[in-house]
Amino acid sequence: MNRRDELADRVAITELFHAYAFHFDRNEPELVAALFADDATVDYGPEVPPLAGRAALLAQVTTGLRNVFAATSHHISNVSIDLAGDGDRATARAYLYAWHRYRDGSPDGYLWGQYHAEVARTGDDWRFMSLQLRAAGMQDFHRSTMHPIDRRA
Amino acid sequence: MNRRDELADRVAITELFHAYAFHFDRNEPELVAALFADDATVDYGPEVPPLAGRAALLAQVTTGLRNVFAATSHHISNVSIDLAGDGDRATARAYLYAWHRYRDGSPDGYLWGQYHAEVARTGDDWRFMSLQLRAAGMQDFHRSTMHPIDRRA
Amino acid sequence: MNRRDELADRVAITELFHAYAFHFDRNEPELVAALFADDATVDYGPEVPPLAGRAALLAQVTTGLRNVFAATSHHISNVSIDLAGDGDRATARAYLYAWHRYRDGSPDGYLWGQYHAEVARTGDDWRFMSLQLRAAGMQDFHRSTMHPIDRRA
Repeated sequence: MNRRDELADRVAITELFHAYAFHFDRNEPELVAALFADDATVDYGPEVPPLAGRAALLAQVTTGLRNVFAATSHHISNVSIDLAGDGDRATARAYLYAWHRYRDGSPDGYLWGQYHAEVARTGDDWRFMSLQLRAAGMQDFHRSTMHPIDRRA
Repeated sequence: MNRRDELADRVAITELFHAYAFHFDRNEPELVAALFADDATVDYGPEVPPLAGRAALLAQVTTGLRNVFAATSHHISNVSIDLAGDGDRATARAYLYAWHRYRDGSPDGYLWGQYHAEVARTGDDWRFMSLQLRAAGMQDFHRSTMHPIDRRA
Repeated sequence: MNRRDELADRVAITELFHAYAFHFDRNEPELVAALFADDATVDYGPEVPPLAGRAALLAQVTTGLRNVFAATSHHISNVSIDLAGDGDRATARAYLYAWHRYRDGSPDGYLWGQYHAEVARTGDDWRFMSLQLRAAGMQDFHRSTMHPIDRRA
């Protein structure tokens, strides 16, 4: 693999995070799920059990978007990508600043966090193989405990 | 057009959004306007009528920066670019998280939104042909209605 | 230097800002300092005297992370890079949206700002030669004065 293709892969992997945000914020759970491999694992925990497979993710996201959120905005930044040797796998992390408006009228929730992901090329596309959400902090968020970013005490 | 040039075009189009933010936040309306084609259309609406042409944009931005805002910060992220076939046109969208401090002492305003744009190459430069601002949400913002991001109900 | 390498340099310089945020937020001051040249200058002022050299930066960051911050999240965006002629120097700026939780229980602090940097290639790596933090605005932040973004009055 040459460097030109590596740069194109970086764009594609970055766009994967952007597509996740865009479709989540537009309440398009099936388009969110389509960004994941069939057997992907997603960990929004620890209050949500790990989700094994695209179908489990689709069910979780569909329910959340229908019952919990009136509106959301997922601002992705600090995308860092480590391309592995064979060019078909990568680890990636991104920062997330997310705003949430709730259906039940609770105060708006804020999350300052990070996505940690493994991604793989399948045919022409990159897809999430695993995704874990970690929190640096939150305010009025609908979770009381999140995976930490592992800040030193 | 080869892929190397496509990547350079992605950088240039991304920088267009960054330049918009930078010059807006520094109260440099003429440098904001210079990023747009002569006949560009800009839609901050629905409370602001669509702006037809660079001169109309310049007037609107000049007035707002002088009369309404004491300070602003436009944080651009989630830049997604679709390069069209001939290499001289593209559609692009970006997320915006914007903070506004008002001259009249109103509480700081927040916007979580998206820019949807058409861009075109003119000579060596990319410029905005059209720009529409959409809101996922807002708080204490100086508009009561914004174009929606078209989230499914 | 050809354009392919320029694009790789842009990625590397962007990752430098991301690494700064990531290690700062994880309270890893020695990994923050490692991103700077030995004789780098850092200006968080005007309330903090300019820091001359990596060792001075390390001392400042170590103290702040240990005594002031319980948690932080540094969201980097709007990265704009100007590559200089010889390919081994660049100026770069980035927007920063930063959230801070304080050890003393003060209300969370927010900063909407910009980093202005000079970077240089040293061997295979890019490092910060200089870094200045400027503020567009702040809320409940632990500084009362910051370098301005030079917004026109």
